[in-house]
Formats: sequence, structure tokens, C-alpha cells
Amino acid sequence: MSDALPLGSTVGILGGGQLGRMLSVAASRLGYKSHIFEPGANPPAGQVADRVTTAAYDDEAALLAFAQSVDVITYEFENIPTSALDILEAHRPIRPGREALRVSQDRITEKQFLSDLGLQVAPFAAVETAEELNTALENIGAPSILKTRRFGYDGKGQARLNSDADADAALADMAGSPSVLEGFVTFSHEVSVIAARGITGEVACFDPGENVHVGGILRTTTVPANLPGGMRMDAVLIASKILNALDYVGVMGVELFVTPKGLIVNEIAPRVHNSGHWTQNGCAVDQFEQHIRAVVGLPLGDGKRHSDVVMENLIGEDMDRVPDLLKEPHVAVHLYGKAETKAGRKMGHINRVVPKD
Amino acid sequence: MSDALPLGSTVGILGGGQLGRMLSVAASRLGYKSHIFEPGANPPAGQVADRVTTAAYDDEAALLAFAQSVDVITYEFENIPTSALDILEAHRPIRPGREALRVSQDRITEKQFLSDLGLQVAPFAAVETAEELNTALENIGAPSILKTRRFGYDGKGQARLNSDADADAALADMAGSPSVLEGFVTFSHEVSVIAARGITGEVACFDPGENVHVGGILRTTTVPANLPGGMRMDAVLIASKILNALDYVGVMGVELFVTPKGLIVNEIAPRVHNSGHWTQNGCAVDQFEQHIRAVVGLPLGDGKRHSDVVMENLIGEDMDRVPDLLKEPHVAVHLYGKAETKAGRKMGHINRVVPKD
Repeated sequence: MSDALPLGSTVGILGGGQLGRMLSVAASRLGYKSHIFEPGANPPAGQVADRVTTAAYDDEAALLAFAQSVDVITYEFENIPTSALDILEAHRPIRPGREALRVSQDRITEKQFLSDLGLQVAPFAAVETAEELNTALENIGAPSILKTRRFGYDGKGQARLNSDADADAALADMAGSPSVLEGFVTFSHEVSVIAARGITGEVACFDPGENVHVGGILRTTTVPANLPGGMRMDAVLIASKILNALDYVGVMGVELFVTPKGLIVNEIAPRVHNSGHWTQNGCAVDQFEQHIRAVVGLPLGDGKRHSDVVMENLIGEDMDRVPDLLKEPHVAVHLYGKAETKAGRKMGHINRVVPKD
Repeated sequence: MSDALPLGSTVGILGGGQLGRMLSVAASRLGYKSHIFEPGANPPAGQVADRVTTAAYDDEAALLAFAQSVDVITYEFENIPTSALDILEAHRPIRPGREALRVSQDRITEKQFLSDLGLQVAPFAAVETAEELNTALENIGAPSILKTRRFGYDGKGQARLNSDADADAALADMAGSPSVLEGFVTFSHEVSVIAARGITGEVACFDPGENVHVGGILRTTTVPANLPGGMRMDAVLIASKILNALDYVGVMGVELFVTPKGLIVNEIAPRVHNSGHWTQNGCAVDQFEQHIRAVVGLPLGDGKRHSDVVMENLIGEDMDRVPDLLKEPHVAVHLYGKAETKAGRKMGHINRVVPKD
């Protein structure tokens, strides 16, 4: 524990949503305080953090004061402005580091990075103009998906092309943003690996979970995933390769398509990940604590699962089901404390734990 | 859920120690905020609460402001001054209610209450003077234990009498406090039931845990307890009887001695209880969430266990073991964020989860 921050130190967290909230709780479990930096007022994470700074990412004075008040900085989302990172990094370590952010903030950079590691990714091509889209379509073909290179999440900033005829509409959807055309991969299902790497380089992975998306938003993650043993090992090796290549510190979500030709990397997220929420009730050390352990320099938990779990997101009007869910045996309800329920908004999740016998 | 406080409401918690801290976290998981009232500066619970009031229990203005800022009031310890409760109760409901506090704040009142319910308790007698102690010793005999009637915890305010010769020293230990002499019960082991009752009167119990104390302080709780099936049922029935008699709302810890003549009630605590910490990693709904559910009017979880657990307290220098414990598989570490490690101080606990095969 000699390299670890002393108990009572403060973890600075950029972003005050549900991931920041659950990171704060995990930090407290290990005896650390948390300080949230978030532009929006009354962030969910603020309710369980020791301190909250409400300021914009271009507020240099606020960034400076925040950095000086904490001992290490992490984040709940990858789209943090570079200018803010420059200021913060001058004063405190940012974990995971800048390279992970650089790679994951741009879909082209990310796919090229993964491809250079020898990992399988969907065919892709950069697209800014109608002409480039036509060329890309000739090479990649339809069906395919046009996505903005940056700032996409939960299926936002994406347009599907079922044939060349959809090209104009898809490009219009990008609203002038630099984009990437991705070939459509025929896969049987998606799994994700929540992997962690500590400051001394050790890697620990949670068991792969099987994800079901509806309308571009994660609906359920089931553990164990339906995966042959060989692919289970492949999934862990892929994740380890990525973390080591980035000299990564923290938890990463790695989404993988299961195909007859093996696992194809869909995308990576340099942070705790929705598909890892099952770990809260399936493991002694969950993904949030694992991330905090990594960023403060504590040894990682080994990721072992004590129970099988099905995680289900509570989205928008799913909140109406909460009274019934609270009564169900072996269901753990996790709500995010968001002031307003909106269609499509992630309001919470449940973990259905499979009891012994 | 019609009777429940709306999401986003605030639970006021009297006391900012580790129990208040874990109650705050549980409240957040259900979408509620928490506000801690605590005389001591920088309480552990304050690090994860939405608000903290630092004020004494005789600060009427602070009590009033606190009451008006919350929607319901609960507590992490039973020795709250009556005058403070009077002020608070005039403005917001206090759950569990006053009757539970009245009974549990005084060992004589508590034993009489339990005895009147037809439950077995150790022989006892009120003692204030040397003469009363002599009379009590004649009736009850040695070995026996002299305890202060009020404000005892973790073995403090207790003196054991191995023979009549220890009487003077034991009485001196009480320092003039009204006391109770309790006959020594020969028991094979101690178990406790963490029981909950909701505002509509439903009762849910967690599985009894088996407790081991060292030096008057709880050391471990193991679930399942070593208990024949009949006694397991008795334990739950005893707890239910107590909760119903008090028209109780919230979680209660009921400590029971296992004897050849059946279960003897040792003591009750009208709050979440150290011997219930195992539920954090053994159940989908833990004792802290169960308590919050009760006091905000949500349906109770059913208390089912998904995993076997051994809870161990981290006391004082046990903190030196944390680096190794963090590396052990299936060990969940819970630290309390206390600024200073002291001998005998509860600094955290671990839950060893027994994995499925």
C-alpha cells in the first residue's frame, strides 16, 4: 500500500452523473473522500460526495481550485475538453491517462489503434463529404452505420444505411460533424469485458457480460455470458492487450461482437461502464471500487464473481415499475437521484441476483 | 408506494458515525438525500451525505432548522436526549418511534418490557447502592454482571462479578450511575436477528447471524448461524413479537443467547446493528437499505440471503491488515473514513463472501 494515497485523501471526479455518483460511494467504502466537478447544477453525484464544484470546463479558476483540492483526478465520461485536461494535469495526476482519452475520444483514432494492435474491428472509413461517403460505401458496402467521430453515446449521432439510397439522409444527420462509416458486422450477440489495470501494471478482468441493446441503449447485461471457453479467454486477452498498450490505470469497458470468425472489438470506454453495473451485486469488489483502487494506487480486487446476475437498466417510464421491483426477492434496486424522469434517460438499474441452489 | 416519501426527499439522520454513513449511502441508492445531525466535527457520515449540521443536541435553533429541512428523521444510536426528540418530533416523524427509544434507553425498562412479552431474559435487579447490590447478589448470585442502566455500548459501563468479593469494585466502576445486576447466563453461543417492520406493519427478518465478541466488542458474525431449525424459527418469532409490540418502524438488532433451555434475549438495539453488516454482501437488500425503506414508507425487501458471509470487524490496529485483505478473493472491505485510528475503535469491517461452488 506504500504507493497508495493515504486514507482520507480526496479523489476528484469529472462529471456528476450516475457513474460519478457510484464512484463516490465506492471511494467512501475505501475510506476516501470525493470531490465532483460538474457544470450542471445539483448533480446526482453531489448528493453523496464530500464536495461539489459547479463550474464550466472553460472556467480556469474553478479547474485550478478543484485540482488543488484533490489528490488524484478521474472522470466518468471521456469527452472532456483538452484545454481543461491541460490545466488539471499540470497539478494532479489524471487517471486513466491522456493517451486513453485521446484514443477513445475519436472513433477513427480508436479503430486505428485497435487495428494496429492486431485486433479485429469492423471495416471503417473517415467521412466528411458526400464524395467521401460514396467512396466509403463502395468499399464497405451496405448495410453500414455512419457515426460522428466524436461525442456519440447511447446510439446518439448514428445513422444506419440500408442501401446507397440512404446516404444523403445519413450525412445530413451528422450535421457537418466529421464522421466514420462502419461496416455492419453480422454478430450473434455482444459481450463486454470490464477490465482494470493498476498503477503497477497488474490486470484484473471481471467475467464477460452479455449485453442486449434496445434503440441503441443498453437494456440488460447477463452474467455469465453465452460464450465458449476459448472466446472467454480471448475476450480477457483482448482487454489486457488494450490496457497494456495504453499503459492504462483504471477500469475500462470493452465491447465485443461475437461472430463465427471470433471476437470483433466494437468500442472501448476509458471509464466504468454501464455493462459492469452487475458487479455491484455479483462480486465482493465491484467495478466502481476497482476503478477507485486503481486510481488511488491500491491493489486491485481479483474480479471473481460470487453470484450470477442479470442487470437491467431502468429507463424513463421504467421508473413506474420500481414499486413492484422493490418487492421482488433477490432484486437490488439502484436509483440515481435524478430530479426529473425523461423518456430515454437512464434513471437507475436493477441487479437480479441468482441465489445459490 | 403511495405512502412513501417521493424520490428526492431527504432523510434526516441523527448521528454521523459509520452507521449513519452506511444509512446515507443506502438512502442514495433508493434516490433519497440525507442530512446528518452530529455534534462532532467532520463526521464520517458527512462525507457521503447531501448535508451536514454540526451542532449540539441542546442547540434548539439547529434542531429546528434540521427538522424543517428533512422529511423524516431516523437515528444511528439510541441515546438521544429526550429534550432533542421533543423538539424534532413536533415537526417531523421520528422513526423508529419514541416508545422504542424509551424502552431501549434503559436496561431495566428493556428487560421488564421483554419479560412482560413472555420472552426469556437473564435474571436482573436494579442497583443503586451497596445494600441493593448485596440483596441483588443474594437473589441472582455470582457470576453476574453489573451494568449501567443507560449509555452503555461495546462492553463499556460493565463490570463482571465472579464472587461477592467483587461487589465493591464493580459498584465503584459504575461511578454512581443507576445500574442493573444481570445474572450470568450459560449459553453456547450468541446469535442476532436483524429484523425490520414497515409502516404498514409487515415484518421481514434476515437470517440469524452467529456473533463472537472479544473484550466486549463484536469480532465476527457468521451467516448462517449454528442453530437448529426450530430455534431459527423461534428467533424470528421473538423478533417479530418485539417489533409488533412496539409498533416499530425500521430495523432492529435483537441479540439472543442460545441455551439448552431455548433462546434468551440479551438486548435489543432500535437501529441498524453491527451484527447486520454481513447483509451488505449477502443480500440484494442490506440492513441499511431495509431501514431506509421502512422509515420512508417503501415496501421492505424480503431479507433473503443469496450468499453465505463471514463479517469481521476491523478494530484499531486491524487496519494494518487492510493491504493484505484488499488482495484476498471474495473479501469486501468497508472502511468508515475515520480520521484517526485508535485502539478499540471500529475503523471498518470486511465481509468474506462464500462463492458458489
